[in-house]
Amino acid sequence: MTATPLVVAVDCSTTAAKAIVVDPSGQVVGTGAHPLETRSPATHWFEQQAEQWWTATDLAVRQALEDVPDRAAVAAICVTHQRESFVCLDSDDRPLRPAILWMDGRADVEARHYGTDRVELLSGKPADITPGLYKLLWLRDREPETMARCHRVADVHTFLVHAMTGRWASSNSSVDPLALIDQATGDYADELLELAGLRREQLPDLVPTGTSLGPLRTEVSRSWGLDDDVVVVAGLGDGQAAGVGLDVTHPGAAYLVLGTAVVIGSETTSYLPARAYRSMISATPGQTTVETFSSSGTYLSTWFRSEFGDPQLAGAPDPQLERDAAAVPAGSERLLTLPYWNGAQTPHWDSQASGVTLGWRGCHTRAHFYRSLLEGITFELRMQLDGLEEARGERVEVLRAMGGGARSPLWTQILADVFDRPIEVCASGEVSALGAAAVAFTSIGRYGSLDEAAAAVARTDAVVDPRPEVAAEYEQLRDVYRSVFAETRDLLHRLHAHDDTRGERP
Amino acid sequence: MTATPLVVAVDCSTTAAKAIVVDPSGQVVGTGAHPLETRSPATHWFEQQAEQWWTATDLAVRQALEDVPDRAAVAAICVTHQRESFVCLDSDDRPLRPAILWMDGRADVEARHYGTDRVELLSGKPADITPGLYKLLWLRDREPETMARCHRVADVHTFLVHAMTGRWASSNSSVDPLALIDQATGDYADELLELAGLRREQLPDLVPTGTSLGPLRTEVSRSWGLDDDVVVVAGLGDGQAAGVGLDVTHPGAAYLVLGTAVVIGSETTSYLPARAYRSMISATPGQTTVETFSSSGTYLSTWFRSEFGDPQLAGAPDPQLERDAAAVPAGSERLLTLPYWNGAQTPHWDSQASGVTLGWRGCHTRAHFYRSLLEGITFELRMQLDGLEEARGERVEVLRAMGGGARSPLWTQILADVFDRPIEVCASGEVSALGAAAVAFTSIGRYGSLDEAAAAVARTDAVVDPRPEVAAEYEQLRDVYRSVFAETRDLLHRLHAHDDTRGERP
Repeated sequence: MTATPLVVAVDCSTTAAKAIVVDPSGQVVGTGAHPLETRSPATHWFEQQAEQWWTATDLAVRQALEDVPDRAAVAAICVTHQRESFVCLDSDDRPLRPAILWMDGRADVEARHYGTDRVELLSGKPADITPGLYKLLWLRDREPETMARCHRVADVHTFLVHAMTGRWASSNSSVDPLALIDQATGDYADELLELAGLRREQLPDLVPTGTSLGPLRTEVSRSWGLDDDVVVVAGLGDGQAAGVGLDVTHPGAAYLVLGTAVVIGSETTSYLPARAYRSMISATPGQTTVETFSSSGTYLSTWFRSEFGDPQLAGAPDPQLERDAAAVPAGSERLLTLPYWNGAQTPHWDSQASGVTLGWRGCHTRAHFYRSLLEGITFELRMQLDGLEEARGERVEVLRAMGGGARSPLWTQILADVFDRPIEVCASGEVSALGAAAVAFTSIGRYGSLDEAAAAVARTDAVVDPRPEVAAEYEQLRDVYRSVFAETRDLLHRLHAHDDTRGERP
Repeated sequence: MTATPLVVAVDCSTTAAKAIVVDPSGQVVGTGAHPLETRSPATHWFEQQAEQWWTATDLAVRQALEDVPDRAAVAAICVTHQRESFVCLDSDDRPLRPAILWMDGRADVEARHYGTDRVELLSGKPADITPGLYKLLWLRDREPETMARCHRVADVHTFLVHAMTGRWASSNSSVDPLALIDQATGDYADELLELAGLRREQLPDLVPTGTSLGPLRTEVSRSWGLDDDVVVVAGLGDGQAAGVGLDVTHPGAAYLVLGTAVVIGSETTSYLPARAYRSMISATPGQTTVETFSSSGTYLSTWFRSEFGDPQLAGAPDPQLERDAAAVPAGSERLLTLPYWNGAQTPHWDSQASGVTLGWRGCHTRAHFYRSLLEGITFELRMQLDGLEEARGERVEVLRAMGGGARSPLWTQILADVFDRPIEVCASGEVSALGAAAVAFTSIGRYGSLDEAAAAVARTDAVVDPRPEVAAEYEQLRDVYRSVFAETRDLLHRLHAHDDTRGERP
């Protein structure tokens, strides 16, 4: 039995726009998805056509609504999305160039040059290629003709809200990843706008997550077969949304996003800048979401399977490889991997870092290497959580994992053993979209608070317990792991010093 | 046209006994081979049945002689062989236990414990698992019942000479790898015998390489269809024999043995102990052969192909992989490998060392990893040659390569580029056996000196020239490579500190 009201939740992620129609218990009554095309016009550059954000969302929502008999029960729509990505629009709201994505690495030099302590303090974000600010600076300096004609800068949420409502407004937690907002006030920081060469009127009006942005445009609601009074609720980035969808809304719990990149996120009750994490405006008023970030997640296991796996699987999960790696002893018989294939992020933020594998012996097999990669990613995550706990002075007891990696029993067991804590796994469904749905249900008054809504929609598929003797083995190895980057950093920098595959400031 | 006289040369190597019948120009008129079985009763232990040394040699010689019409032209036989391997015999000349091979790692603890500066100075050999001395000490301490009944200790040459002549005599260069001989005198060192708990009468009488040890036993010469006056000429180890077979008999040239392990060898006119090499008694009277040693040669490329290669090839050479790796830019796009899969040898002699791969990026493919292994082995060889040249104060201009690795155009090009010198390649034939043949021809007076004989039998299949721009790229990388072990040694020792796969002294 489906309860009412229903909400539509959209996750416009990096790879696809996905839509679900959800009831207040979290039951999904309709789903839709449409892929997004990413282009890489140069090494480390990643772009999308912003128009596709809307056309893919439109198609995904239509598909999700197809199976819903009572569309009149739909009361609201809320969007979560890939963060940091943005597009520049002209005075007719048309894109001036392709949108630049979060993982686009073109602004490496700008991040190092402009990412001062002051900028980090205001924005709450360690200088890195990901925040929008550095790519806006790249455009300012290298494509001045784009910025001269730029009427508006829109992140994914802003772009979709405009398409749905005609308004140029967004949530502060959605816009926050551009790194133009003062973390302490939640409003744009004049200093950061000035640095970027932007005026306030080029950016969306800010409201808190969960605020109603008014009804869908009539043209949209009619084309989707919905009532005229369906409200668009201000959404939030996919990281924070995953936290809500996993019922991680208070300090003491953390969400693990095991995607292409991996993230540990947790809630704090105050803004406390630290190198141990990046700070984001939370979906819960007055709270700050803190997140660690590592760009080597399933990226790395997919790389391994593409290069060393069964060619017929073309990088897809390989059950035999998982079984072989599960049969390798914990610690991969002393094969230890530093997983910095895409540079180091939290807390080092070192784009010149790269991966290291230590301890090779003749006894090591293909499965040892694979297991060692998963262990390396997990050691890094554990170090990040340790740093986050230390900076905040409190321990995280509850760990909830989602994303592609959560579907690997091998990896979730390694996680439980390395963290020496149970891992609650949510391996199915659209967790971020469920988080957006919880925001919508709270906004329309179906629940009294976001906590209550999150608890109602969240699901746990399994709990993986740590094995004490394996946890002890991993603790020994982590003791070595903690030294690896410090002792190889100079070597890696020297190794890449003459490397011409990275862009240089002209 | 075959010239006369002919000689039979045997190479009783680790994997097989191989025999050739050769004329004075180095032309091979008959070949035979019979495999040897190696057993590994424990991790890092490698043993053979000594009786097989003889049965396999016997079969190989018979096969080689099959195609020789004029067996009466055979004047001598000379043996080269795997070094350091030995067997303990009872008073009836029967093996008391399986022979312990050169690559057997059981005596790691003994090498560290007994391998004093004094022992190294006398023996001319850095303490390591390979010299026979440390395995004799292992037997003394852990199998006293074997040593109590041990009437004789025989290396491969001694064992085969006894089978062929009935004499317990051998060449000093063949016995030398047991590390019981005083490098300065060429005779057994009483101090080393005492340390090992051995008496002179348990060991073969020593003669110089090239000395006649008398005729074949009648039983043997008849069974091979040879005349009664075929003399057995005192041979030499396979490394020194390879040098002779490549016409490397003077300072200024070096031989590269690109086998499972890799060796650089050269001749010196005096014994000068150094950590940069091990010293061996040369086939040329008054000279010392110096050799560097690294146990990661084709061992490593075979390991790679077994673990990451086409499963159907089961570790065999893979032309497509070679082509793919040849297409990867020199330097493997900054993927750098320390090839210590079997520990470090010259000049570090560190059994706790292991392999390291630095610089992993998403751009790296399976072919990059493979190329990086070959480059790592070659950087190590170059460092070893630099150390050898520095210790001797003279430059090696002529480099001649043989062994399985010499058949890889990819690897020989990397060698030429990394050494920045032409590499003369002898990819075909039995080079060590040809060296033994040159010894035999000199012994029977067919040539006036070993130099003359070596020049007559040696062959070059190709010369690979260095490419200056690639040599410059490799020089940059070698600058980083030279620091890798120093900066990761402590990490590797810590990583393996709790490793229970290595034996501990009981």
